[in-house]
Amino acid sequence: MTYELHYWPTIQGRGEFVRLALEEAGADYRDVARAIPHEGGGEEALMNWMADPELARPPFAPPFLVVKRAGAEDLVIGQTAAILTYLGAHHGLAPADEAGRFWVDQLQLTIADLVAEVHDTHHPVSLSAYYRDQKPEAARRAANFRDQRFPKFLGWFERILERGHTGWLAGPELTYADLSLFQAVSGLRYAFAKAMARAERETPEVSALAARVAERPRIRAYLASPRRIAFNEDGIFRHYPELDL
Amino acid sequence: MTYELHYWPTIQGRGEFVRLALEEAGADYRDVARAIPHEGGGEEALMNWMADPELARPPFAPPFLVVKRAGAEDLVIGQTAAILTYLGAHHGLAPADEAGRFWVDQLQLTIADLVAEVHDTHHPVSLSAYYRDQKPEAARRAANFRDQRFPKFLGWFERILERGHTGWLAGPELTYADLSLFQAVSGLRYAFAKAMARAERETPEVSALAARVAERPRIRAYLASPRRIAFNEDGIFRHYPELDL
Repeated sequence: MTYELHYWPTIQGRGEFVRLALEEAGADYRDVARAIPHEGGGEEALMNWMADPELARPPFAPPFLVVKRAGAEDLVIGQTAAILTYLGAHHGLAPADEAGRFWVDQLQLTIADLVAEVHDTHHPVSLSAYYRDQKPEAARRAANFRDQRFPKFLGWFERILERGHTGWLAGPELTYADLSLFQAVSGLRYAFAKAMARAERETPEVSALAARVAERPRIRAYLASPRRIAFNEDGIFRHYPELDL
Repeated sequence: MTYELHYWPTIQGRGEFVRLALEEAGADYRDVARAIPHEGGGEEALMNWMADPELARPPFAPPFLVVKRAGAEDLVIGQTAAILTYLGAHHGLAPADEAGRFWVDQLQLTIADLVAEVHDTHHPVSLSAYYRDQKPEAARRAANFRDQRFPKFLGWFERILERGHTGWLAGPELTYADLSLFQAVSGLRYAFAKAMARAERETPEVSALAARVAERPRIRAYLASPRRIAFNEDGIFRHYPELDL
């Protein structure tokens, strides 16, 4: 089984949750839009996929994953949480039992909600306008996020870790939800450095989990490689000092 | 197998997607927060669940579904899309093949994104403040939603239906994604009556699907029953004339 990941080539964004799972799994994948155009890569390859009128099940938006299966049709999966459900089941990144699988799915969907709220801190009133054209609204939304939502989300993860006693969110083994929480913590530290430093004083278990993920051999190698795109102000986690009070 | 659904008792909200699936399945369920308190119901029962310090896997937010299984522990599932994955698999509301299951999941997650954007039209800058305290921001967000996002979402569903030729989103049989699209269409017609009337001129297949769902015998009976809560201005789909231009 090999994979083609389709996602915007210059940001971590939602695609990064998929990249981390593929890297931890040691999977054979190609990050298509980051490959060079004359080898079938580039953003154009992604756009062509999306616009293909022959595709019965077109993805709504990146990321989407093409699963190349020997002896079977390609499987195309869109939506980050659905992609991770697939990778979790096929690469030992989710529990085998039904209750465990649904729990990891629930964790991931809650992280997705957090990520959507982070995006809204810099784009509260228009998804198609620039941040600079919605700065007062962003300041208000970011304040609400820092004061109310931050503690609610991080406190929930902290409680789960306190009750679980394994250092992971879903039992004795790492799952894709742990990778995703690491990514969320990394992004929040970048975007909201001050607020996150305050918040993490109350969530030592969350901080410890993030540190443990960063020390996984494959993740450590990935983070040090050019495959890891740096956080920047085109992605979801953006550092605007005026929003990080 | 019987179910306890935990959701806010006075709104359709995200819980309605679960209610529709339970109704179409003819499942044996109790809508706990709508039951009377001395029979173990009421909003307090829901809050007690959420705050239970013994719960290793506490739900982050309603809706959550408690699955009462003969001879096994209760299974507690939070997050609408995860609940529907469970109900789809156990009640024939999703395809049996892997590609079909992931497709229905992807459809549902995209509907969830749409629903989150609808919520943001009346709460763009603060989830904890009232609509009346963020009306100018809401007007801007709603305009962006009507002009840009509406056509993108509905156009995607229309293309899928045009290409599928079955009248349903995922093959020859109704799935929970069809029920959810019906609910989204119903909500949009309520909240954005004018914009939706314009949009539906371009999406006859979507309108036809919604009509077909409404005529399913169990759904029709449900919609006519007191179990169906009316749309109102506490829910996600709210009609504010100033946002529906």
